[in-house]
This record gives sequence, structure tokens and C-alpha cells, in this order.
Amino acid sequence: MNKQGLLIVISGFSGAGKGTVVKELVAKHDYKISVSATTRKPRALEVHGQEYFFLTRDEFESMIKGSQLIEWAEYVGNYYGTPKEYVINELKASNNVILEIEIQGALKIKEQFPEAILLFIVPPSAKCLKKRLVDRGTEDATTIAKRMARAYEEAVYMKDYDYIVMNDQLDKCVETVNSIVISEKARTKRNEAFLEEIKKELMVFSKGE
Amino acid sequence: MNKQGLLIVISGFSGAGKGTVVKELVAKHDYKISVSATTRKPRALEVHGQEYFFLTRDEFESMIKGSQLIEWAEYVGNYYGTPKEYVINELKASNNVILEIEIQGALKIKEQFPEAILLFIVPPSAKCLKKRLVDRGTEDATTIAKRMARAYEEAVYMKDYDYIVMNDQLDKCVETVNSIVISEKARTKRNEAFLEEIKKELMVFSKGE
Repeated sequence: MNKQGLLIVISGFSGAGKGTVVKELVAKHDYKISVSATTRKPRALEVHGQEYFFLTRDEFESMIKGSQLIEWAEYVGNYYGTPKEYVINELKASNNVILEIEIQGALKIKEQFPEAILLFIVPPSAKCLKKRLVDRGTEDATTIAKRMARAYEEAVYMKDYDYIVMNDQLDKCVETVNSIVISEKARTKRNEAFLEEIKKELMVFSKGE
Repeated sequence: MNKQGLLIVISGFSGAGKGTVVKELVAKHDYKISVSATTRKPRALEVHGQEYFFLTRDEFESMIKGSQLIEWAEYVGNYYGTPKEYVINELKASNNVILEIEIQGALKIKEQFPEAILLFIVPPSAKCLKKRLVDRGTEDATTIAKRMARAYEEAVYMKDYDYIVMNDQLDKCVETVNSIVISEKARTKRNEAFLEEIKKELMVFSKGE
């Protein structure tokens, strides 16, 4: 059967709980996380190589020039991107790689890795999303309103994802993501080599061996 | 999210262990089994409504005329078919329905229920398949040779299935089937109504509620 690693791209509205889902997934199952590169300054407690690879603009631009990024973009004066080498090496080593990334980046990944699966994490409802943002207590009302408006803009891209995973109960959400990965590996189109192999074998046996 | 029941069609070579997989699946998870109808005589220990609905030819033919079968076929002088009513009622009641059926029947089901998922259970290898048939000890060498030849003929249809599930370890195989069902329910195309709903809700919130 198919032993190739799978590239799993995870997006979702701010407040949908993607980060927690990814953390739990890695804690409970065997996944590798692709760490993004950025030129923004590290926040307190952020560690180079963990939350991000923190690079200078020169370093980042040299990665762009060297085609060492799968995708990159500039937001509010800072670069963000996905280093290519790590992803390719882990996939080759049959590891499943998780990439938590915003929508435009996710769609660019799919162009370059059509075999990747795109998952969009959703809250049970918009009301629930707003409640989570309020309960977090880290943003003021204006910022929350902006995030809700952004979620509405982003919602149009949900249809471009392969799967919609509801984050109602964390455990259930994590297991659904893991089920999707198990399931994708069993898809017929990912197992064509195995099918050819067993057909050849059966031919030998059917000739009366 | 999508609450619709899913129709899961399971096929596989004779000796691949489909029956055991289905039994375990029902014992561990919440599935309904669609029982086929047949005009063949019940074998020892077979119970009407359990292994099959055992019907007379007249009864079966009246079901054919009344369009009460999703698919039917005649083998070696006996009718076999899938009663429609049970499947439709269980799907409406949001239950997942399993149908263990041979290949031609499975492909006919897919024509009528394009939303159904087709799973093909495979042994790890042709060698292993033959070993299982021999170990079963219920068939002579000629019958085993026939089954292997039939498996070779059937192998060409594996590509028409949505998923290929290897039955190497029973528990793992059962959990893979269950993962496929969980995963399919999260597919974007099965959740279009939910996406529309959350988009509408987000629009209201983005207007500053």
C-alpha cells in the first residue's frame, strides 16, 4: 500500500482553534510540523525553529531568490513563507507533514503539491466564533469586529478546501483530522502501484501456480 | 454539519475477510447492515433476515416488478438482490448503512446512489490470499484455483472503487473503514448547506452586530 507521506494543510478562521488542534494532533499521533519562516520580530516566549524561523530581510530575500520557499507573502511589512526543503525531505521519508497556514498560502501550496489535502477548521457557528474571541480576552471590541469581518471575507474560500472539520469538541476534531489522513491514504488513486502489483501476482496464481 | 447517513458498499476477493471486517465494524461502531434477498435455500444456521431474506422465486420476481430492489442478479439459478426500502429508510434516519456485495452489484449501486462510497478489501498479497483460502480448509484445490482465477478477473474493477483497504490486521482494517466514513462526512462537497449557513451568519456579524 501507499507509504508516501501526506502533506496536510490546515487553515481556519482566527479563533477557530487551529493551533490547539495541531498541538494535540502532534501530541497524540505521528506528524511532523512544517515551521514557517518570517522576518517579524519574535514575541516573548517564541523560539526560533519552533513557532517560526526568525530571519532577517536579507536572509528571507535570498531564500526567495533561491526558490527555497513553497510560497511566501508580505503582510504589514513582514515576510512570511514556507521553506521547501523540510517539507520535501519529510514527505520523502514517508512522514505526514502538517502546515498551518492562512488561505492564500494554502491555495498556493495546492498548486505546487496537488496531492496535498486542504482542511478548513470551522467553529460550530459564527456566534460561537465571536464568543471564543471575546472569551480569549486578548483583543478589544474593534479587533474582534475586524476578525469577524475577515472571517466573512475568508468564508468564500472554504469551498476550495477538501475537508471541513468542525472544532466543537477538541478531541473529536483531532480524531477527525487523523481519520481524514488515514482515509486519504486508502484512496484508490493513491494506491495505483499496489493495484498493479497485486494484479500481476494474481495473474501468476490464476495460471494455476 | 452533514447529518445524512452514508451508504458504504464493501466488496473484496473471496478470502479477503470482508465478512469478518463487517461483523467487527458493526460490533464496535454504529452501523446498520443492509441484508440481501435471495431465492437460494438457507444453509445450516442461516437465519431469515440475518444472512439473507430467503424468498421464493415468486416473491423475488414481484419485488423486481415493483422496483423494490436497488440491484439484482441471477447466479447459478438463484436470484440475489438488495431491497431498496431498508436502505432508503436508514439513510433518511441518518444511519450509516453497510452493504457487503459483489462487484457488479456494487457498481450498480453507485449508479443509483452516486453519494455511496465503494470500498474494496484486499489481502496484503495474492500469496496471502491463497494461504487464507487453503487455511480455511473448506474448499478443495480445484475450488481454490477457481477462486484465485476469479480474483484475477475481479482485480480489473478495483480501480472503480473509491478506497482500497488492506486487511492485514483485522483491528486496523476495521478502524480504517471507520476512518473513511468519518472522513467522507467531513468532505466539503457533503457540507455545502453548512457552509452557506455559516457564511450567512458571518455576514450578519461582520456588519457589526
